[in-house]
Amino acid sequence: MTSFDDFIASKSSLIDEDRGAIPVVLSTRIRLARNMSDYPFPGWAKKSQRRDILTSCQGAIQDLPQMKHSSIFNVDELSALEQQVLVERHLISRELCEGAEGAGVVISRDQSCSIMINEEDHMRIQVLSNGFNFKRVWKQIDTMDSAIENQLNYAFSEDLGYLTACPTNVGTGMRASVMLHLPGLVLSGQMEKVVRAVNQLGMAVRGLFGEGSDATGSVFQISNQQTLGQSEEEILKRLSSVLSAIIEQEENARQRLLESESVKLLDKIGRAYGVLQNSHFLSSSEAMNLLSLIRLAIDLTMLPEDRRTTVDRLFLESQPGHVQLVAHKSMESETRDTLRASLLREQFQSFPPLKFSALDRSKS
Amino acid sequence: MTSFDDFIASKSSLIDEDRGAIPVVLSTRIRLARNMSDYPFPGWAKKSQRRDILTSCQGAIQDLPQMKHSSIFNVDELSALEQQVLVERHLISRELCEGAEGAGVVISRDQSCSIMINEEDHMRIQVLSNGFNFKRVWKQIDTMDSAIENQLNYAFSEDLGYLTACPTNVGTGMRASVMLHLPGLVLSGQMEKVVRAVNQLGMAVRGLFGEGSDATGSVFQISNQQTLGQSEEEILKRLSSVLSAIIEQEENARQRLLESESVKLLDKIGRAYGVLQNSHFLSSSEAMNLLSLIRLAIDLTMLPEDRRTTVDRLFLESQPGHVQLVAHKSMESETRDTLRASLLREQFQSFPPLKFSALDRSKS
Repeated sequence: MTSFDDFIASKSSLIDEDRGAIPVVLSTRIRLARNMSDYPFPGWAKKSQRRDILTSCQGAIQDLPQMKHSSIFNVDELSALEQQVLVERHLISRELCEGAEGAGVVISRDQSCSIMINEEDHMRIQVLSNGFNFKRVWKQIDTMDSAIENQLNYAFSEDLGYLTACPTNVGTGMRASVMLHLPGLVLSGQMEKVVRAVNQLGMAVRGLFGEGSDATGSVFQISNQQTLGQSEEEILKRLSSVLSAIIEQEENARQRLLESESVKLLDKIGRAYGVLQNSHFLSSSEAMNLLSLIRLAIDLTMLPEDRRTTVDRLFLESQPGHVQLVAHKSMESETRDTLRASLLREQFQSFPPLKFSALDRSKS
Repeated sequence: MTSFDDFIASKSSLIDEDRGAIPVVLSTRIRLARNMSDYPFPGWAKKSQRRDILTSCQGAIQDLPQMKHSSIFNVDELSALEQQVLVERHLISRELCEGAEGAGVVISRDQSCSIMINEEDHMRIQVLSNGFNFKRVWKQIDTMDSAIENQLNYAFSEDLGYLTACPTNVGTGMRASVMLHLPGLVLSGQMEKVVRAVNQLGMAVRGLFGEGSDATGSVFQISNQQTLGQSEEEILKRLSSVLSAIIEQEENARQRLLESESVKLLDKIGRAYGVLQNSHFLSSSEAMNLLSLIRLAIDLTMLPEDRRTTVDRLFLESQPGHVQLVAHKSMESETRDTLRASLLREQFQSFPPLKFSALDRSKS
């Protein structure tokens, strides 16, 4: 077992590294649902079986070269706050925290890979990466998956593919998703239309925290719905082409805003900057909406590119769990809102002034 | 006739001088309604009579020592924009601008005194002063009134007092008012209660621009309703005691906000400061509401006292007419909102940072 404090103190490849070349794409994620044929699915397994599942999986995972020096947590040994921090980093799901016996997670040293055990399936293997990176992420997760498969007896049907607790995952067991920052489409009121079109193409659109979460901060997660009857490569190819279309639409929306609504856009960005520098009370959703506008300002070269990593980190550090992590204690919502404002104020006081001239240039 | 440009270029004792010791009180105003017995009231007078009224009154006024080097304007020779600027300075009323023959105004060199001719009455004599100053203002207007009375035949009844076009002004013909800045009562939701109490005491509460205007910027004008059956001194004494009570309530409200809601108060002030420094689109009412919070910040020593005159000037310069005056042309509302934001941004960029520590001191 790892100490949570050591885990938090270590660098995360997602938080501390650059986001890559396409500003619209925040991160790429692929997860595979996998089960062993020797045990019932977690929802049907007895407590003792779930404990055995945990032991078997942890054993197989720890042997992987990718998981050297990994952090291993059993969910029931994590505090509610520690669980929340891991959820906010997308390293575990809320479902995993619901406290069933034998629920655990193994997280790679650089935090790019996490394997949940005894969530809905025996294993949920996940690889996260900054930027738009299906090829690399797929190669990484495929290698890990094969290595685990060498050690464990996967539940697999020649007809259907990988068997999973929920029929919607049967086949590849794969869910690939990309986190997009779409302020242009949101500000110009086109997001509803885009969501409808993406749904019709068989893809799902969700907020930052998955199903049921809203699109605070103009952050949307686009993922495949279908797992059966297509190869992983086909799924990723289709998803990529949908994503390219959305990215293009976002870029067009921004261009149109710059051409016809530049003053109002400037105003929104300026106010966000002013509020972040001066507010004393800030909810997490308002913070995300303000940071979204600052991220847009960086895309528009109104702020230097080297602030992007800071702004992306602040997106995460504005989440309720991360704010409490700074204070080393759990806090009421009002106290959190005050601390969040003070953390952001301090960061933004040292930001350079907005370069409005940058916008004139990008217009012409 | 004076050139409007020369008039605007000259110093105003109200805009360019300090507001005095009580931060809650912005300004004091007394006006007297006066008519000559030789002519019908303006509403009943023929065009030629109204022209005669204008000539007689202007003649009598120009002889007054207080009106040396005064500016004389005939309303129909002022552009709509120039009229609006005078309304925003409280030197003429909207009613005077409705374009009747012979409507004019004489304004003293320091802009503290204005006499409207052919508004509802033959003359509306007004003296304005910064701060809380009934005694001085009354002495000044009483002296002028007597000097005019030496030259013109006032319509006066031994029973009723001064006769006026509207019966609500008969008697003293006096309306005394004070402009108050009451953010404490507004922020703590007590203003409605105060308005009711003040009304019950026979006083009127209005917004910055008189009857029908709302209380944008937490600015309220309190005035006497009654003009009959009481001497001027009695009216001013009663009004003063009501005003003292309101000022005390405002101070208590601020103290309570500092004690129990200091974070939210800080947050409001901080955001106002941030928006004023960074906005690119600002309506006049939003500008007033933001400036109101900055004025409160000065009262709370979060900004240096020497900025008060600037902030009070900006209240005026944020009005639609004054914004257009800067541009030397009339503008659409959207263009004004952009220019207003840019004028305020420029001013606030050079403001010192808010001293939050000041608030902790005033709490203890």
